[in-house]
Amino acid sequence: MSPKVKQVLVYFTLIKKPFLFTFEPELKNNMKKVLILGSTGSIGINTINVIRNFPGEFEITALTINTKIDLLEPQIHEFNPKAVVVKDEKLGRELERRINGKCEVLVGEQGLIDAAKNLDYDIFVGAMVGFCGLAPTLEAIKRGKIITLANKETLVVAGELVTNLCKKHNAKLLPIDSEHSAIFQCLEGEDKNSVEKIILTASGGPFLNKSKEALANVTVQEALHHPNWEMGNKITIDSASMMNKGLEMIEARWLFGIEKERIDVLVHPQSIIHSMVQYVDGSIKAQLGLPDMKLPIQYALTYPARLANNNPRTDLAKIGSLTFFQPDMEKFECLKLAYNALDAGGTAPCIMNAANEIAVEKFLKGMIKFSNIPKLIYKALEKIENHKAPDVYTIFECDKETREFVLKLS
Amino acid sequence: MSPKVKQVLVYFTLIKKPFLFTFEPELKNNMKKVLILGSTGSIGINTINVIRNFPGEFEITALTINTKIDLLEPQIHEFNPKAVVVKDEKLGRELERRINGKCEVLVGEQGLIDAAKNLDYDIFVGAMVGFCGLAPTLEAIKRGKIITLANKETLVVAGELVTNLCKKHNAKLLPIDSEHSAIFQCLEGEDKNSVEKIILTASGGPFLNKSKEALANVTVQEALHHPNWEMGNKITIDSASMMNKGLEMIEARWLFGIEKERIDVLVHPQSIIHSMVQYVDGSIKAQLGLPDMKLPIQYALTYPARLANNNPRTDLAKIGSLTFFQPDMEKFECLKLAYNALDAGGTAPCIMNAANEIAVEKFLKGMIKFSNIPKLIYKALEKIENHKAPDVYTIFECDKETREFVLKLS
Repeated sequence: MSPKVKQVLVYFTLIKKPFLFTFEPELKNNMKKVLILGSTGSIGINTINVIRNFPGEFEITALTINTKIDLLEPQIHEFNPKAVVVKDEKLGRELERRINGKCEVLVGEQGLIDAAKNLDYDIFVGAMVGFCGLAPTLEAIKRGKIITLANKETLVVAGELVTNLCKKHNAKLLPIDSEHSAIFQCLEGEDKNSVEKIILTASGGPFLNKSKEALANVTVQEALHHPNWEMGNKITIDSASMMNKGLEMIEARWLFGIEKERIDVLVHPQSIIHSMVQYVDGSIKAQLGLPDMKLPIQYALTYPARLANNNPRTDLAKIGSLTFFQPDMEKFECLKLAYNALDAGGTAPCIMNAANEIAVEKFLKGMIKFSNIPKLIYKALEKIENHKAPDVYTIFECDKETREFVLKLS
Repeated sequence: MSPKVKQVLVYFTLIKKPFLFTFEPELKNNMKKVLILGSTGSIGINTINVIRNFPGEFEITALTINTKIDLLEPQIHEFNPKAVVVKDEKLGRELERRINGKCEVLVGEQGLIDAAKNLDYDIFVGAMVGFCGLAPTLEAIKRGKIITLANKETLVVAGELVTNLCKKHNAKLLPIDSEHSAIFQCLEGEDKNSVEKIILTASGGPFLNKSKEALANVTVQEALHHPNWEMGNKITIDSASMMNKGLEMIEARWLFGIEKERIDVLVHPQSIIHSMVQYVDGSIKAQLGLPDMKLPIQYALTYPARLANNNPRTDLAKIGSLTFFQPDMEKFECLKLAYNALDAGGTAPCIMNAANEIAVEKFLKGMIKFSNIPKLIYKALEKIENHKAPDVYTIFECDKETREFVLKLS
């Protein structure tokens, strides 16, 4: 993608003499340099699809992954990043051999942090899943970068710390989650003090119409079958338990600086209205679109501009009907746990998040029942001490302690 | 409402001596002066309701009506306008006797024009129905006032002329129609060049599910029974024929400077989504609210601020479902006529509007069948000459000629 020096023949009609000179295409100076954390995951791949749609707009300077070097390799050949990071050290060394010096290869968690800290980029795309996104995100914030964030765990576990750090270092935080992108779009041009409430829409996931009793015995396969969105395994399970909406609610609290009493969750199975903002005059603004992450990713990358694309358009007459109802907090206990964790504050959301990550892993491995996910989280919240106004160190310790505790539970 | 000079006793504790002085309350300087054209109609009454909700924000300096002096009289006593206008001369003289010099009373069409031309006001509220709104609106524009417009006919018959005049005199044009207010709200903070299309929603009126054949024989009573909105007779009939959406489509074309190919009409029977804007990236923004004109009126009066109110809020979970489908242009011929008139340009929309006003009057008087409304309009468009790029004089002549022609039809 990096534009090559071109030779251009310019013929001056007046002097009737051909004139040869070389120049760097001007585009290069305007291209935004992008670092993608998690380039082989669902959001990462979609980010690359968006970038591919706008040649001349973006230059990928670095890519990071956990393990999927087979997917990373062609990305390296297509985009010529300056560096890549593979979290798994052994696989990182393996990749290094394969690409034979084509770019720098960093490894391990420290590699992620070093990449965020030292590489040259304008936009940080936090597309990785889970708590591991926090440390590199903090480094990018300290450098005052544009932080586009799909990794909701970062704001869930360290929302106050992250948003304060953004203010301090003048880093712009832009959401990639479709719900938060919708809210962000609805807030454009509006006075933030006029917001009455935020209405987060939720598809309700695959078990919307199952009874609480039936929920106990759902299989991994059933839970991985989301009705609207194609996403990674972790977030798909979170959608099935509605923990995803709980995480998003906490994310919204920090992104938009609005207390939980003013964040409603509304079930909307079609996932067409991605979320809404209600203002003090009663007016509601909503953002709509097909369930396709390419739009919110593109919006975050090109903000404040909107660039034309050929993505399929939303045909409401064809869709026919949009439905809405209140979420069932008794059935979806994870959503209730998230409200309570946000209410408790301190490290409670961190405990909840870590416990959820381990519980979901256990469910995916067939070690626990679906209905045990909230039970494990509940036990962790009961057992692990809540530290108020935690610093980064405390958050990391709390995350570690919780994981160790939940790993032992069944 | 005009604040009285008050006497205030201020006791200076230091000098221990009472000190008497008079002052004009500071609020007065910030109060926006409002002229309401059509204060006893549906929009006018709602405008007054909004103003009543925000004491200290607005001062009504003038009110105008056609005939309903019994409704105007209490408005005069409540708001103490400097002047009122009664279009019907005889009723105007009658009112003058009744109020015994409480305020100036102007009469006739010239009175409307004089009021717009000479009175002291900041905001012009065009809440009257029909073509008669054009002349006073032009006067307000020439004075560079804030023009809040519910009178869609003004833009339908003279859209190009009106919008050019607004630019010339730096007059701000703000929509009051719920659909156009929705679009206006969705455009806030967005680049107008990023708009891909406007999606005007339509309730479909009371005859949405009637066959084209059944439509021929509907009664006046049936046509006046709108499912969602309480409005005046003329606009309610226009809603039943979907001419209202045709007028709104033309209005949108001029208000937002967007050609008709990029204005879609989408039937949405619940009237909760008031309209939408689709952007070049495929993102759609919508504005939602209960079917209540107080919100768009308030927004126009307080723009760009949003003021808190206690109006009932939209409960989507309670509403349950929003549905959408394509309008049936064969059944609702008026909508098709409007697209064609806008396409033809020149005085075609003026002819269509004048013919429609007379045809609706005839239907309301039981002189013609409902299905004859589009037929009369069609005849007028066929018969009356279309003048391209008309000036005001040509528009007035065309309006008059059309009315005379359609009056003779049956």
